[in-house]
Amino acid sequence: MEIDTLLMTPGPVHLDAEVTLAGARALTHHRTNDFAPVYTECVTLLKKFFGTTQKLYLTTSSGTGAMETAIANLFNEGETVLTVQTGVFGVRFTRICEAFRLKTVVLACEDGKRVTVEQIAAALEKNPEISGVTVTFNETSTGIRNDIEAIGKFLKDKGKIFITDGVSGIGALPFKMDEWHVDVAVSASQKGFLAPPGVGMVALSEKAWAKVEQVKCHGYYFDLKIYKKDQEGAIPAYPWTPAINVMFSLLEALRKIDRIGIENCFKHYEKLAGGLRAALKAMNLRLFTDEDATSNVLTVFYSPEGVAPKDIVSELRNRYGVLIAGGQEQFATKLLRITTIGAIGERDILGTVGLLEMTLKKSGYLKQVGAGISATMEYFLNYK
Amino acid sequence: MEIDTLLMTPGPVHLDAEVTLAGARALTHHRTNDFAPVYTECVTLLKKFFGTTQKLYLTTSSGTGAMETAIANLFNEGETVLTVQTGVFGVRFTRICEAFRLKTVVLACEDGKRVTVEQIAAALEKNPEISGVTVTFNETSTGIRNDIEAIGKFLKDKGKIFITDGVSGIGALPFKMDEWHVDVAVSASQKGFLAPPGVGMVALSEKAWAKVEQVKCHGYYFDLKIYKKDQEGAIPAYPWTPAINVMFSLLEALRKIDRIGIENCFKHYEKLAGGLRAALKAMNLRLFTDEDATSNVLTVFYSPEGVAPKDIVSELRNRYGVLIAGGQEQFATKLLRITTIGAIGERDILGTVGLLEMTLKKSGYLKQVGAGISATMEYFLNYK
Repeated sequence: MEIDTLLMTPGPVHLDAEVTLAGARALTHHRTNDFAPVYTECVTLLKKFFGTTQKLYLTTSSGTGAMETAIANLFNEGETVLTVQTGVFGVRFTRICEAFRLKTVVLACEDGKRVTVEQIAAALEKNPEISGVTVTFNETSTGIRNDIEAIGKFLKDKGKIFITDGVSGIGALPFKMDEWHVDVAVSASQKGFLAPPGVGMVALSEKAWAKVEQVKCHGYYFDLKIYKKDQEGAIPAYPWTPAINVMFSLLEALRKIDRIGIENCFKHYEKLAGGLRAALKAMNLRLFTDEDATSNVLTVFYSPEGVAPKDIVSELRNRYGVLIAGGQEQFATKLLRITTIGAIGERDILGTVGLLEMTLKKSGYLKQVGAGISATMEYFLNYK
Repeated sequence: MEIDTLLMTPGPVHLDAEVTLAGARALTHHRTNDFAPVYTECVTLLKKFFGTTQKLYLTTSSGTGAMETAIANLFNEGETVLTVQTGVFGVRFTRICEAFRLKTVVLACEDGKRVTVEQIAAALEKNPEISGVTVTFNETSTGIRNDIEAIGKFLKDKGKIFITDGVSGIGALPFKMDEWHVDVAVSASQKGFLAPPGVGMVALSEKAWAKVEQVKCHGYYFDLKIYKKDQEGAIPAYPWTPAINVMFSLLEALRKIDRIGIENCFKHYEKLAGGLRAALKAMNLRLFTDEDATSNVLTVFYSPEGVAPKDIVSELRNRYGVLIAGGQEQFATKLLRITTIGAIGERDILGTVGLLEMTLKKSGYLKQVGAGISATMEYFLNYK
């Protein structure tokens, strides 16, 4: 039967109906006091969830637009940026830097491994001209979670601008921008913040802002100096027309996260991810990521030998209305990705695990069903 | 009583509830065949309404983002662009060009006047190095409608890239991109297309696309070469995550316009604008724009001597829930702007005119009420 698709994909994530419906309100004009409180409360709650008391601006864009905002505002032509690549989104920072004619030093990590502080230290030593470092917090393409805290603490006295792509991580995993000495953190509405896509977020430390003041922004639409002026106006506003209805939904979602308590959200996702991984282990499926890089946002694992990821994805989607994802680019024929954040619960993990197990039996990989889903149930029962 | 505000502002415009509600649907994933038909149908209908059979791409951005997309993709550093200024949005093209280190030749028109073909011809003669020309179709800040048809026909053999900001014009006023030889036309969802904000639109002629191929895009997020690749993929898609719910609403709005017939929409707005102007004339209020520059999208007029525009705007908004706009920048203390496009009807014009008339009596400008609104009613009765 045709039912709403359950999104177990790494963004957009599954949303609550109340959040979706919150967007279905008559427009208020974005330059009036009818809308300003929506904007201001979103910024206030997001600062709390980013762990910052410093600056935070919103853009009408996807997460890629927020990444572009960071690079366009922080570096002048000719500067060098160290871009750490642990997947597609790490590479994206390299591409954005190249688009703005910046020099890049690429630190490409091995498959499944997170970047180490030592690797970054070595790159900086070899290339002292580096003025900024980009690291993906949680890599949507590979499931790798980098240790932003350790990197931030290492970088804090090095005079570099430390930029983190938090698009799929912030809101879903503990993140403390100020405490971890992150200079620029970007995110978007459709992942950890459980809202529809359309709003990008860029938070900046005072150190980062001092740098922005010395940079001629590459472009106009994402020029944060204009955003600052408008946010500080008598009626706080975006400089251009925002995605007003998406903002209504975003505010609803942020209030909900705040009501639940973001720490409780983190714990919920930890439980869901643990339940999924217990099943994968019981089914002898191998994780792509090293243990210390594993993320509660999504779990990435190898499809069994001889079973094409796309066949599993199709079966789950077309027959059962559950959307998981295959690998990206060179991993398309090897990996599967299942997300465990969103407005989802234990029931969704059980449903997804059960369907995966059924599909793997049909494919011939499993002789019988039950071991995977039983492991999930045991895990949930024992989870404290 | 607190009721939904009636938006008589130059964008976002007032929306139908069915369009707003269409956005309140469960998300479909943007890289699946669940979403692709939404994207494809939006592009198809928009091409029809732009009057083009050539290329059209959508961005997650405001109209300013679409303007930036045009400039970032069409000119290499060092090229010169003639930017025609008939208001704030004409100036915006100048600023965007400057942000990308392009050279600009500014053609600033006199207050209330549209640009003439002769002025453009003179600028080109004086500056033969100009490789592109930007003209605002309908200026939201001043109510000036430029004659894109005449300019396009003049420019067609000149070897220049002709870029039109159609943000508040396309969808609301007759526009024929291909027939008028426009190379790049940009717009956005929240004005003539009667949808919520969040989607930018960029249409390009084959001539413009040939130029894009020779340009290294300034930036990554708006790089149309990536958009082209993804739109032509097996599952047509945006390259980044789109504002999915805004797209649902946009499709609903475009289908509605198509069902009504866009020519009928134009005629409806002509009637509404005519009804408003009849009232202004009866109240002896002076239009800001020359007659040949007058637009059915919005009407801009001088506030009576001694009556501050902001007081009229406040009274209408705070007491009656009707939002009109004052002038922008140097015109803030002089002008009023009332929009006559959106999901609005004769009743909304009568309501707005009546409230304006009441407010002008209270302010002492009018001795009695009735002349303005009667003129509107007569106009509507006689409108064929």
